[in-house]
Amino acid sequence: MARASLRENIVDAALERFHAQGFNGCSVQDITEAAGAPKGSFYNHFKTKELLALEALARYRDDSRMGMLFEGDKPPLKRLRAHFEFLAARLKGWNFERGCMIGNFAADMADDYPVMREALNETLARWSGAVGSLLRQAQAEGQLAQDRDPEVLARFLVNSWQGAVTRSRLTKSRAPLDDFLTCAFDLILVRPLIDA
Amino acid sequence: MARASLRENIVDAALERFHAQGFNGCSVQDITEAAGAPKGSFYNHFKTKELLALEALARYRDDSRMGMLFEGDKPPLKRLRAHFEFLAARLKGWNFERGCMIGNFAADMADDYPVMREALNETLARWSGAVGSLLRQAQAEGQLAQDRDPEVLARFLVNSWQGAVTRSRLTKSRAPLDDFLTCAFDLILVRPLIDA
Repeated sequence: MARASLRENIVDAALERFHAQGFNGCSVQDITEAAGAPKGSFYNHFKTKELLALEALARYRDDSRMGMLFEGDKPPLKRLRAHFEFLAARLKGWNFERGCMIGNFAADMADDYPVMREALNETLARWSGAVGSLLRQAQAEGQLAQDRDPEVLARFLVNSWQGAVTRSRLTKSRAPLDDFLTCAFDLILVRPLIDA
Repeated sequence: MARASLRENIVDAALERFHAQGFNGCSVQDITEAAGAPKGSFYNHFKTKELLALEALARYRDDSRMGMLFEGDKPPLKRLRAHFEFLAARLKGWNFERGCMIGNFAADMADDYPVMREALNETLARWSGAVGSLLRQAQAEGQLAQDRDPEVLARFLVNSWQGAVTRSRLTKSRAPLDDFLTCAFDLILVRPLIDA
């Protein structure tokens, strides 16, 4: 029995190729070739290239470990920082190429692919929601000033992270991510209550 | 005499098509067709599609009026806000499609087009520099806390704006831009010294 089905191979290859080349930058043929699959087999498994991209996005999201925002018993702001450090280390491991697949798909597909747009909106809303719930917890514990709105701040931080990641693809360095961390935590830590 | 040369028509069409479809999403033929130019004429005027994209970027940059950061005699933070409001109104005028061409080119071209990468880096560095000089001025006038680093904050704000613009393409609304403005000015205005 084959270790992975042809379908699985195609999704694996799509995750890798879409991330490296963008939705418009790679063809179905690029993906089937990378998967070692006959091009003709593609449409046996996927109705459209967009539907394949949606599966790749779901897998990318799983790999991004948003769940770690809720794991462990560290204080909420330490968990938040650890999450961004995990993502930064992953980007470094990719040599600051590729960027974030969510932002890449947004740039390529936001206007012409409503199903993908909805999936990206939901992904970012879920991520912002997770960050917001950590911030709310931090506020309850007195680590975030009461005059901050955790939901607004969470959306801003998630969007700002995306912008920092794009810039790190241009500088090919961590510097924009460090600028993000410095300013994000300046924004949060209006009072020096934690030793972050 | 023709009002615009064929070359100019191609650059105009490129600005429009690249912005709407991304670098990988449109072909040289899409651009020459939009310009009403024979496809064969393209390579008389441009050596590569990348070189055309660089001209389109230069024109986009001129249209983005970074110069307004230095114009007029309003207080620096009011000028900063007016600049972002100008950009937000432009995005609304585009119905929150298209996004920012700088960010779009970054997503499509950062890894494989070193000349474009350099041009994008320079564009963002110049923009960040302009924002930084306003922030420095604000600091000198006592409107920005002394413990903020104007250069780090400027880079962060420019990158964060890019992220907010990408998200506004997904939500098709101003909301992410307003989140940006709220949090950016929270970050700047650590003391309520101006009536922004």
